[in-house]
Amino acid sequence: MRTITLKQEMYLWAKQVKTAGHSIGFVPTMGFLHEGHLALVEEAKRDNDYVIMSIFVNPLQFGQGEDYTTYPRDEKRDKKLAEEAGVDILFMPSVDDMYKHKKSIKLMVTEKTDKLCGATRPGHFDGVVTVLTKLFHLTTPNRAYFGLKDVQQFAIVTALVEEFDFPVEIVPVDTVREPSGLAISSRNVKLTREDKQKAPALFNSLLLGKKLIIEGETDANVIIKTVRHYLDQQLGENVEVDYVEILTFPYLEDLSEVNGKVVIAVAVRFFTARLIDNIIVD
Amino acid sequence: MRTITLKQEMYLWAKQVKTAGHSIGFVPTMGFLHEGHLALVEEAKRDNDYVIMSIFVNPLQFGQGEDYTTYPRDEKRDKKLAEEAGVDILFMPSVDDMYKHKKSIKLMVTEKTDKLCGATRPGHFDGVVTVLTKLFHLTTPNRAYFGLKDVQQFAIVTALVEEFDFPVEIVPVDTVREPSGLAISSRNVKLTREDKQKAPALFNSLLLGKKLIIEGETDANVIIKTVRHYLDQQLGENVEVDYVEILTFPYLEDLSEVNGKVVIAVAVRFFTARLIDNIIVD
Repeated sequence: MRTITLKQEMYLWAKQVKTAGHSIGFVPTMGFLHEGHLALVEEAKRDNDYVIMSIFVNPLQFGQGEDYTTYPRDEKRDKKLAEEAGVDILFMPSVDDMYKHKKSIKLMVTEKTDKLCGATRPGHFDGVVTVLTKLFHLTTPNRAYFGLKDVQQFAIVTALVEEFDFPVEIVPVDTVREPSGLAISSRNVKLTREDKQKAPALFNSLLLGKKLIIEGETDANVIIKTVRHYLDQQLGENVEVDYVEILTFPYLEDLSEVNGKVVIAVAVRFFTARLIDNIIVD
Repeated sequence: MRTITLKQEMYLWAKQVKTAGHSIGFVPTMGFLHEGHLALVEEAKRDNDYVIMSIFVNPLQFGQGEDYTTYPRDEKRDKKLAEEAGVDILFMPSVDDMYKHKKSIKLMVTEKTDKLCGATRPGHFDGVVTVLTKLFHLTTPNRAYFGLKDVQQFAIVTALVEEFDFPVEIVPVDTVREPSGLAISSRNVKLTREDKQKAPALFNSLLLGKKLIIEGETDANVIIKTVRHYLDQQLGENVEVDYVEILTFPYLEDLSEVNGKVVIAVAVRFFTARLIDNIIVD
């Protein structure tokens, strides 16, 4: 595995590989790798000649009061995991190199941001699409891999690629779960032992929602109420349910009657960490 | 020459050519071709294995009350001229195909737009960078060619490519002029015979400004006043000088003292057409 830190070097490597007729799979990350990231690499290796993983904690997608400076970082461990997973190029640019030009043009997400996590993170997805536009241009992938755990990010990246005709295929990868059903996340380590035992309730609540739909329930409000009631019961008083939402997938439009492909998504605020999860039902 | 109208077909052609190791030069236009466009093709042919020209009158860059519907079009003549100039692929997408997705992400130019022509065309350059982003993705050029006559467009496209790391080199091409010095423009045919005789005054006023700088004048206001006075004298009462500006090149920043590379730019409103011109002085 080769580590590249300069944009210029990354671009030249990618250009050489593409000109030679090879395909590139791209896995963008903010580092602190876990099994979810490694599942993306595994998919990317299956479909492409070369795999680039980027590790870049993007300041542009953190709001005021968010945890940009304390975001977990472990470069040494990340390098080891990436190499073991079979990554060919680990791209770790500096903030100075990535944002060396004065900004005179802005990318803004004007739809799909007033729901799920976007509602409480103004500007977050502007930062996400800006850094991904740059990374796509620098790595020129045939395919880029995104976990479905952040379903809103997947929906917005899909829109970015469609609306601006990026020559890249966005490949969704299923959420990786612990045997308990708990979705793998960097934040799971922050949970207290007691909360960790409660946390599988998120996925179980989603399975309950799915079951209702499969049994014929079409009223979104009924499903939301049932899922929320289940969460409240399972999690107890000290845990706050941020949201339970049902939206169309992948466009994330509001709906009152369930019809076609939908996503049920939940966010729960434990004392030491906020967790999200979702399930797609067709 | 092959004409392509579908985005998907354009993208697949470009992919095939790039994968085979060939280079692509790209000349984006709104059609109604003249010698200025053909000079871009000539440069593109010199540097690249294949040349793509696009003809697309982009509704997004026309404001309310601007001439989108009456913008001059002559597909038959354009095809003939493009073929004679040696264009390999003429890409003529439809508006429906280009903008088939609902817009949920916006590109906005937030700097460099309050001067020159941008001051009176709000949103114009948002439309320009949006369509160019799409066209760059669809044609994946190694180099793209822009005339310096629209110096503000060149500056903003340069910023687009730098700030978002597009893997494309922007090549500036000098303005093509008639023997009188008049810059070639689709709008010249709209001039009355009398105005056509007066119009070379634009370039002569720029040469006067350049002469002042070379002779040591550094006060931008003095140069602007002298150029404007010359234009007023030469053009007479029925012609309105829209602006005379001196800015840094290529960043188009305001300056009071001339230093380094600058551009002197003028816009003049004749009764039947508005003309622009500029000169770069180092």
